[in-house]
Formats: sequence, structure tokens, C-alpha cells
Amino acid sequence: MRPRLTTKDYIDGILNGDRMVLSRAITLVESRLSGDRELAQQVLMGVLPHTGNSSRIGITGVPGVGKSTFIEVFGQHVVSMGKSLAVLTVDPSSQRSGGSILGDKTRMEVLSHHPLAYIRPSATGSSLGGVAHRTREAMLLCEAAGYEIILIETVGVGQSETLVRSMTDFFLLLMLAGAGDELQGIKKGIMEMADAIAITKTDGSNRPLAEQAVSEYRNALHLFSLSESGWNAPVVTCSATENEGIGEIWDLIQNYLTLIHANGYFHKSRQNQNVDWLRSLIRQQLEDRFFIHPEIAEQWADTEQAVRSGVELPLPAAQRLLHRFFKEE
Amino acid sequence: MRPRLTTKDYIDGILNGDRMVLSRAITLVESRLSGDRELAQQVLMGVLPHTGNSSRIGITGVPGVGKSTFIEVFGQHVVSMGKSLAVLTVDPSSQRSGGSILGDKTRMEVLSHHPLAYIRPSATGSSLGGVAHRTREAMLLCEAAGYEIILIETVGVGQSETLVRSMTDFFLLLMLAGAGDELQGIKKGIMEMADAIAITKTDGSNRPLAEQAVSEYRNALHLFSLSESGWNAPVVTCSATENEGIGEIWDLIQNYLTLIHANGYFHKSRQNQNVDWLRSLIRQQLEDRFFIHPEIAEQWADTEQAVRSGVELPLPAAQRLLHRFFKEE
Ligand SMILES: Nc1nc2c(ncn2[C@@H]2O[C@H](COP(=O)(O)OP(=O)(O)OP(=O)(O)O)[C@@H](O)[C@H]2O)c(=O)[nH]1
Ligand SMILES: Nc1nc2c(ncn2[C@@H]2O[C@H](COP(=O)(O)OP(=O)(O)OP(=O)(O)O)[C@@H](O)[C@H]2O)c(=O)[nH]1
Ligand SMILES: [Mg+2]
Ligand SMILES: [Mg+2]
Repeated sequence: MRPRLTTKDYIDGILNGDRMVLSRAITLVESRLSGDRELAQQVLMGVLPHTGNSSRIGITGVPGVGKSTFIEVFGQHVVSMGKSLAVLTVDPSSQRSGGSILGDKTRMEVLSHHPLAYIRPSATGSSLGGVAHRTREAMLLCEAAGYEIILIETVGVGQSETLVRSMTDFFLLLMLAGAGDELQGIKKGIMEMADAIAITKTDGSNRPLAEQAVSEYRNALHLFSLSESGWNAPVVTCSATENEGIGEIWDLIQNYLTLIHANGYFHKSRQNQNVDWLRSLIRQQLEDRFFIHPEIAEQWADTEQAVRSGVELPLPAAQRLLHRFFKEE
Repeated sequence: MRPRLTTKDYIDGILNGDRMVLSRAITLVESRLSGDRELAQQVLMGVLPHTGNSSRIGITGVPGVGKSTFIEVFGQHVVSMGKSLAVLTVDPSSQRSGGSILGDKTRMEVLSHHPLAYIRPSATGSSLGGVAHRTREAMLLCEAAGYEIILIETVGVGQSETLVRSMTDFFLLLMLAGAGDELQGIKKGIMEMADAIAITKTDGSNRPLAEQAVSEYRNALHLFSLSESGWNAPVVTCSATENEGIGEIWDLIQNYLTLIHANGYFHKSRQNQNVDWLRSLIRQQLEDRFFIHPEIAEQWADTEQAVRSGVELPLPAAQRLLHRFFKEE
């Protein structure tokens, strides 16, 4: 077993950009052991003054749309310009943890061996709020370690996109051409959160379909209001296998960041991210403490079942559990 | 001053369909006085077994789209078939409370005098969660009073639509033709929650524009996945002033309800509504108790400001407040 690191070991290691320590710190923030939680808090406190300096980019899309392949190629473009890059993945459905995401390090074969890139497939779990906190904390650790660009990949089938959206500066939605079956999995509303849509796999016989998809999505996006950032979400095409359109996506992200730095939206958005985070930490902690309370934990499954089947009504059920929790009467 | 009613007075009055008592009961559930809250809980408990039997319909759209005028005409169609109807409004921005919604009773001139109709412009407030609970409780009181159709009007500019969506069986989005300025206010993502879209004010010179809007919205909706209910959201036109398309909308809602009763989605959706409600009651109560705690209330504004401006970080701020709340350390 590796010797336990002290708070100072963690902080120094991270700030020096030591990947081994960074990885162990991310494992630490993901741990649910209460001793680990305390140490994790101290490490986070120590590095927090050194966070906030990266460009945070979220990437989503249905399974198989080509997210990992895109990141492999896009990431190489980023590091080829001398920028350091950390890649995190969020996958709230723990069943998938043995699946494709764990295979990503091999899918990102070239990128994962580049000295400027750090890839961390992580953050699966049952509670979405919990996943969100661990991802945010992992992101902060990567920032403290000096990574300039953070990419967060999430699967666009649940609610994790909303969370990733709320902790990133730019949100890229990858879509497949051929608005048929392939789109069945995309959650309603995700399209509207995107700062850009890229039609993936625009190569070979897919090209005509992709061009058609571009104009369909452009029309669809035009039905919606201009976003608060003042930016019009563009729809572009790309092919990771042919390395086409990748540099253009990097450029448009730079244009977006330039715009929001100039018009003050970046600053405002980061301030809002902080207040959101404060509120969500409080909310999450209150809920966590409620649900790990021994009496609640014991009664929850039965109560939920009783409410679902209509045997007990939500209002009295909630009162009953809350009285227990606050040890009233 | 009117004499205070007892729990039994309230319950009997509501179950007898006494509108005066119903109105006072809704005022009671909206009250924040802690004595009123307790009485309200008892009244709700008393009537709960008599709830759940209405068709719950949510209606949203930007200010001025014609929601109130639509409800005036649609409501008359409903009562003309001998069905009783309650209309509730949700408007989370309290600034608007002096505005158009309070004028609705006059806008719904004919409907408001019909013996089968009950109109209650209400539920404004600062906390969205609070508004949601009061609206849900008002809806339950109306159901207990025997109303067969509940219409909930909400302005489609905030997050209240998501809440209204989560407590209704059918969600109707009203839209204006001419996808220009008029649409700027619509929040991204609302369109995707709709079970039907109706292009309002399809009369006079608006007609050609409306037909064009129909095909645009149909195309846009086709980009999204089939909803879990198995229903394809239709796009239709209507004119409240010409009384055109109104009966058709009633018919399509009936078709929807028939479908979801047949395929089991209605039952499943109501069960899920109950579990959601239980969870949201617990979440809301935990937060309410946190924020009304004297020490938290005293420190909150300063803490939020410190976090916003970056003087304090969210993580230690949350810890500090939570320790206070749970009287730890
Ligand atoms: N033709 C073509 N195929 C591609 C392209 N990008 C990815 N693919 C293929 O699409 C499949 C899925 O790619 P992934 O990158 O694993 O997709 P993903 O979105 O990360 O999938 P999940 O992680 O399972 O959600 C693989 O077989 C890739 O080889 C592309 O640009 N062109
Ligand atoms: N031509 C035409 N005008 C309409 C129609 N329906 C409503 N209007 C007009 O549109 C304006 C706004 O109507 P309201 O019903 O108050 O709209 P609303 O959506 O309830 O507005 P808020 O409550 O402010 O959100 C009024 O001047 C109505 O007379 C219609 O079918 N045709
Ligand atoms: Mg992948
Ligand atoms: Mg109105």
C-alpha cells in the first residue's frame, strides 16, 4: 500500500503539477469515507486560491456520437499549440462504469501519452448532485495543477448536461446527421443549452446528410432567443477520423471566449457559478445529512414505495420523516 | 373581520364545493404565518383522499401571447359541455403581481361569472419552490372541491414552466407567428416540454404567417425524440377572438388523455408526480428551515456577497453556515 499523503503533500504536489499526486487527490475527493472527506476538504481549501484560471469546456452528445474520438483529435490540436489540457468525464449511470468510458484512455491513445495532457475517466455514481460536486472538485484540482484547458465529457442522455453546463464556460453539443433513429436518445432541451453544435462524422458518404443536418439545426436554433452571452450558437461540421473542422471549432471557442471576456459575461457567469455552487453545496449537504441519518435510511425505501402506490400521501410522509430527522416531538 | 374557520369548517366547505371556503382555504395555504401553515396542513390532510380526479392542464407562453384570452374562450367551451373548471395562475415574479395577472378576472369576464368556473389569480412569490408548493396545494383544494378540469396558466419566461409541467398531465405552449422579436422572450427548452403547440391569434392578416410558423415548429419538433408518453406533440393554430381552433385543442387533449390512460403512462406519471412531490417537499423543508434559522438569516446576505465577489470561497462558506445550522464544533 502506498503511504498516506499529508495535506501538505497533496497541496504541494498538485501545485507543482505532479500528476501522480493529482490523480490521488481526485481519488480522494471521490471517496465517500468520512475521514477522506475531511482531508479532501483541507486539500481543496489549500489549492482554491490557485483555481479559476482555465477555460472550461463541456462536451456532450448521445452514446456513439464520437465524443471520445473527437476529444482525442481536438486535444491533440490543443496541445500542439503548447496549451495544457485536462479531460474529465461525467457519467452518472454507474452501470456504464464498466463500459465505454473506462475504455477511453485506450481510445485516446495518442493524447493520453502527451506530456501536456491529463485524462481522467471518472465521476460515476448514483446521486447526480454527488457526481456534480466530485466533478467540480476534480476540475478545481486540475486547475490548481496548472491545466489551461479543461474538457468535461458527459453523455447527453440524462440530466448531467445541465450540471456540466453550469460549471463550464462553453458547451459543445455533438450531433449525428440524419435526424432519424440516432436522435432518439437526445434529451429534449439539450440543444438549447449549446453554445455550438457540431455534426460529427462528416466524412465519406455522410457528407450530404451532414450538410442537410446543418441547415436543419440552424433553422431550429433560430427559433430560440439570443442567449444572455450575446452569442449566436453556430452549427458546424467536423470529422475526427479525417481531422477536418477541428481547428475551426477551436477557433470559434476562442472567439466566444474573447466576446464574453469583452462584454463582461465571463466575469458575471463565473460569479454566478460561485453563488450557484454555494447554494448547491448547502442543498446537497442538507439532503446528504437527511438521507444518511440512520432512521431515515431505514424508513426511506418503504416510505417511497407507500407514496408511489398511493398508500401514504406525500405531505404526511414528508412531515413524518422531517420530524424524525429534526428529533421533534 | 370574518370569523376564523375551524379545520372541520374548511374541510366540509371544500368538499361541499363552497367557493367562499375554497377561496379562503387557498389564501390559507398561501399564508406564511406559522399558525396558518399548521391549519393549512390539517385541512390538506383532510381533503387529500378526495384529490387526484381532475385532468390537470398547464398553459404557458410569453407575456401577451394571449394566454388569458385563450383561457376565457377555451374555458367557455369546457363549461358548455357541462364540465367544471378551475383556473389557477403561477407568476413567480412578484413585481408582476400588480400587473396583468391581477387583471385576469376582468379579462375572463364571461368565464368568471359562469357557475361551473372558478378563477383564482394567485401564487406569486420570491421562492420558486414556495410558489410550486402553494400552487400544488391550491390545485388539490380545487380537486377536492370537485373541479374536473384544472388549468394552470404560467408565464413562459422563467423556470415556473418546469414546475407546472411536473404537476400537470398535459402541457400546452402558446406561441406567436413570425419567429422574430416576439420569440425573444421564450426560454430555451420550453418548446421541448410541450405536449402541443398552438399558434395564437391566427386571424386577419396573421393567417399566412401562422401557417408558416406551424410548419417551422413541426420541423423543429421532429428533431427531438418521441416523448415517453408515446405522444407526438402536434402544432395547431387557433384564434381566441374568432373562436377558431378552440374545440380542436380540447379534442386533442382528450385524445392525449385517452392514449395515456390506455398505455399506462397516466398512472405512471401520477405515481412519479407523487414521489417527486415527496422529494421536493423534503428538499424544500430542509432549505426553508435552513434559511429561516436566525443565525443563517443574519449572515446570508453578507456570505452571498462575499462569495460572489470572490472574497470567500463557496466551499468554506457552505461549511461555516452548515456548522452553525447543525450547532456543530
Ligand atoms: N466515420 C467516422 N467515425 C467516427 C468518427 N468519430 C468517431 N467515429 C466512430 O464512432 C464510434 C463511436 O465513437 P466514440 O468516440 O467512442 O463515441 P462516444 O460519443 O465517445 O461514445 P460513448 O463514450 O459510448 O458515449 C467509434 O466506432 C468511432 O470510430 C468520425 O469522425 N468519422
Ligand atoms: N387578434 C387577436 N388578438 C388576441 C387574441 N388573443 C389575445 N389577443 C390580444 O393579445 C393581447 C394579450 O392578450 P392576453 O390574453 O392578455 O395575453 P397573456 O398571454 O395572458 O398576457 P400576460 O398575462 O401578460 O402574460 C390582448 O390585447 C388581446 O386582446 C386573438 O386570438 N387574436
Ligand atoms: Mg466516449
Ligand atoms: Mg394573462
